[in-house]
Amino acid sequence: MNIKESFAGLEVGYDIPALPGMDEADIQTPCLVLDLDALERNVAKMGRFAREMGVRHRVHGKMHKSVDVALLQERLGGSVGVCCQKVSEAEVFARGGIKDVLVSNQVRDLAKIDRLARLPKLGARTICCVDDLANVADLSAAAVTHGTVIECLVEIDCGAGRCGVTSTATVVELGQAIACAKGLKFAGIQAYQGAMQHMDKYEDREAKIAVAVAMVRDAVEGLKAVGLECDIVGGGGTGSYYFEGNSGVYNELQCGSYAFMDADYGRILDKNGNRIDRGEWENALFILTSVMSHTKPDRAICDAGLKAQSVDSGLPVIFGRDDVKYIKCSDEHGVIDDPQGVLKVNDKLKLVPGHCDPTCNVHDWYVGVRGGKVEVVWPVSARGKAY
Amino acid sequence: MNIKESFAGLEVGYDIPALPGMDEADIQTPCLVLDLDALERNVAKMGRFAREMGVRHRVHGKMHKSVDVALLQERLGGSVGVCCQKVSEAEVFARGGIKDVLVSNQVRDLAKIDRLARLPKLGARTICCVDDLANVADLSAAAVTHGTVIECLVEIDCGAGRCGVTSTATVVELGQAIACAKGLKFAGIQAYQGAMQHMDKYEDREAKIAVAVAMVRDAVEGLKAVGLECDIVGGGGTGSYYFEGNSGVYNELQCGSYAFMDADYGRILDKNGNRIDRGEWENALFILTSVMSHTKPDRAICDAGLKAQSVDSGLPVIFGRDDVKYIKCSDEHGVIDDPQGVLKVNDKLKLVPGHCDPTCNVHDWYVGVRGGKVEVVWPVSARGKAY
Repeated sequence: MNIKESFAGLEVGYDIPALPGMDEADIQTPCLVLDLDALERNVAKMGRFAREMGVRHRVHGKMHKSVDVALLQERLGGSVGVCCQKVSEAEVFARGGIKDVLVSNQVRDLAKIDRLARLPKLGARTICCVDDLANVADLSAAAVTHGTVIECLVEIDCGAGRCGVTSTATVVELGQAIACAKGLKFAGIQAYQGAMQHMDKYEDREAKIAVAVAMVRDAVEGLKAVGLECDIVGGGGTGSYYFEGNSGVYNELQCGSYAFMDADYGRILDKNGNRIDRGEWENALFILTSVMSHTKPDRAICDAGLKAQSVDSGLPVIFGRDDVKYIKCSDEHGVIDDPQGVLKVNDKLKLVPGHCDPTCNVHDWYVGVRGGKVEVVWPVSARGKAY
Repeated sequence: MNIKESFAGLEVGYDIPALPGMDEADIQTPCLVLDLDALERNVAKMGRFAREMGVRHRVHGKMHKSVDVALLQERLGGSVGVCCQKVSEAEVFARGGIKDVLVSNQVRDLAKIDRLARLPKLGARTICCVDDLANVADLSAAAVTHGTVIECLVEIDCGAGRCGVTSTATVVELGQAIACAKGLKFAGIQAYQGAMQHMDKYEDREAKIAVAVAMVRDAVEGLKAVGLECDIVGGGGTGSYYFEGNSGVYNELQCGSYAFMDADYGRILDKNGNRIDRGEWENALFILTSVMSHTKPDRAICDAGLKAQSVDSGLPVIFGRDDVKYIKCSDEHGVIDDPQGVLKVNDKLKLVPGHCDPTCNVHDWYVGVRGGKVEVVWPVSARGKAY
């Protein structure tokens, strides 16, 4: 099938970059492409790791914002549910058939709390995080109004310096308040150390998580002393899951980026000093881009700029090529250093994005490819769901 | 009207941050808010400037990606049409009723060229840029196939270092090829100096545009010598429009950011050494955000992170406040330095984004406010239209 046959009938314009069955060569750029084989291998591998460590895996849906990817993680990786960061994301996952959804964040606005309290009506176990006593009363009132149950985790700030409390006394105080509140259920602890995930050295990450584990262990014991058991002790990301998974304290991992990988995560090192994108995880996510101007012999201009990615964690890296380099990003263009002038107009390149999460959030579609063919086109279901 | 009345009937979840008629205080965050009074003043002012300089203004739709804003610029600013950067954007503007659309970029992929050639059927004058002889034949073939006319500008690289040619001889060669090609019409020159728009000093920007004007003047004369007149000599942005507008060579401006303003543009200086967001243009675009955690006395956490903005040109600035400062941005959160602990959970703040274009491209809606009320909710019509 060629591009004209594929899009026949769509008289002026179309809003998708590809159609299933199309040759990979006919995909419209820039767009997100998933290597389905690599994605499936990553997902199955993390599922095996979690099983071997005896912990559950609640995949982080904030990374991909895709119901289809979450369902694949359930099917091939044995994930027990999804975590996400916003109520509007949780609504998308619950509507999409995910039965266990954690908003791993605070929900404070009364209108948002009202929406959260309605979520169980969609058939999804609904969990959120709490770090402030005043929030408990608001969550309780909304759950009572809707006749639903919201489960609550007390969030510990174990090093990220954002939300969460820092003393066991406060964890216990919040845990007891939740346990006593109508419509709420105390479900455990949230302790994700986000700030260390991207530290290059394995030993540096290990030291940071050791601090987190000690805080969490103390809190679990403090809660136990007042009769509160933690169903969930959650945390762990792509740069640390083996520490939390083997800690004997955490029982749920929350990894996201492992499934797709990105250039910034790829650079961190495993315990043997190897980059984690050279064996541990495969690059499954790419921004497909085309050269669209080449008027200077050593500079090619491609069609993926700031509207096709987030460069907060650095520029993208051209996959599988060391003869050309993405060196500058403006609104609509990427500048590619092409010292030998090997690129031609309409040549396509696969970019590994600097940071997968905010890059996925810019796009409406994932084009899943296998064996040179487009196999699926999945919506980025919760794209833009930031509220 | 309060939030519950506003959203009554939408049982679980809703996909818009506000409804017309709602109090400004009830807007769901994070979202983009437009100060309609400021926006209208900016738009009218640039219209007046263009009139006074005797040039047309073709507003840059890539900035806002909104049909509604483009129509407002037509009505209040007398703009003659829109420029945008991608065929998929042009389709949105043409469908939305804009009658004169310039893709101020190269269109090289054959499928994209096919779509471009269909655009005139929607009733829009259709223009694109050319910097390579091989492109002329492809554009011509598509226009002939569809029985339409594509007007072409030769793009000059006058300093941005991206697309475009750099010699008058090449401009003339391309102009003649266009003029001879069936289905195409030679329409003039595109010469936008994007790289200098954000230079702080007025004199530095003036010097860069002087180079551009000299190149363009030479090209116009070279074209005239072979009998080719330029209907359009286009360029000029928010940091330079007075130079192009008064050059006697350019006849169409292409400003975008002036309408919304952003923190990065706001910092550049006018000829009197004043920031351009202190008199020349008003901040009309904000990211509305809420404080959602404040467990440390001197740090507030807000709900606008990388999913609500692009930080390529720096962090956002909190509007109208010097007691608090946005100091760090992660995927879902902003960290706000609050040394005196003045912020409370659910307090709202208006952020001036670092860079308006890629920030608008993350959002689905503009919430237009006036006098404390939501007046309009406009879709970001061409959001994600990067192909």
